[in-house]
Amino acid sequence: MNATATVLNSQQLLIHWQGHRNLTRRVIEAFPEKDLFEFSIGGMRPFSKLTLELLAIAGPALEAIVDGINNVFDESFQPTTKAEILAKWDGHTEVINEYFSQISEERFQESFKLFGQYEFPVYQNILYFVDNEIHHRGQGYVYLRALGIEPPFFWERER
Amino acid sequence: MNATATVLNSQQLLIHWQGHRNLTRRVIEAFPEKDLFEFSIGGMRPFSKLTLELLAIAGPALEAIVDGINNVFDESFQPTTKAEILAKWDGHTEVINEYFSQISEERFQESFKLFGQYEFPVYQNILYFVDNEIHHRGQGYVYLRALGIEPPFFWERER
Repeated sequence: MNATATVLNSQQLLIHWQGHRNLTRRVIEAFPEKDLFEFSIGGMRPFSKLTLELLAIAGPALEAIVDGINNVFDESFQPTTKAEILAKWDGHTEVINEYFSQISEERFQESFKLFGQYEFPVYQNILYFVDNEIHHRGQGYVYLRALGIEPPFFWERER
Repeated sequence: MNATATVLNSQQLLIHWQGHRNLTRRVIEAFPEKDLFEFSIGGMRPFSKLTLELLAIAGPALEAIVDGINNVFDESFQPTTKAEILAKWDGHTEVINEYFSQISEERFQESFKLFGQYEFPVYQNILYFVDNEIHHRGQGYVYLRALGIEPPFFWERER
């Protein structure tokens, strides 16, 4: 085996994640202001709440992994406008770029207990952040369709 | 950098994917037979059709990557029962295990043109299969909630 062979390197995983985050940002934008905060199906959370869950994970989780701190899961950010959510989203884009690049390749296989309870290898934690975002964004697609709004193409990840 | 350092290896990616496939299988099972084929929201495809898209990708795509063949995207499998879908799903679980293990670590960074049109590094193609499955399964969660059915926990990936 080639010593440099790798399924993907950390920079590729970062680009992959930020591509998904670009798409999620466009899904947030696609919601009418009122529906972002109020529309739901089957008793589920409105898309704003799903987005706030994502914001409570990504940036704070990376800070915890890099700085080795044991922060708690904090959903106290409760914005009332789409603009506030998008501004926080963009702030986290920078936080993720800054912190992700500080994770050495070795660390991805090391275990880390996130938010005081989720103890997994770092690569599993980060894949979970991405997967959870795709999962909730897919739900946002259904909300948009139910509202008669065409969502962005799933495969378009660039800004 | 440690020469063996890696974000994740191919076996870990396979386990990650099969974990997601276990969960998707349980979501298929959670649908009442009739709703699996008929229920939809906002003009979207019923969950059976979303599942058939996944079945048209995963196994055939891996066979193409490993054998280097240029097969076409084929959605001609049109089952009429949940049992047929689950049987095909389980067959693909074995196909994926068999073929995935034949992809050398080097190949993940090589480009491959899938279904005659999607030319990307192999790791991007495979991440797309997983992401696309999470995306559509998230939509299935909304269908289940709208039907008053509690979906399986997102974080439970074991059989």
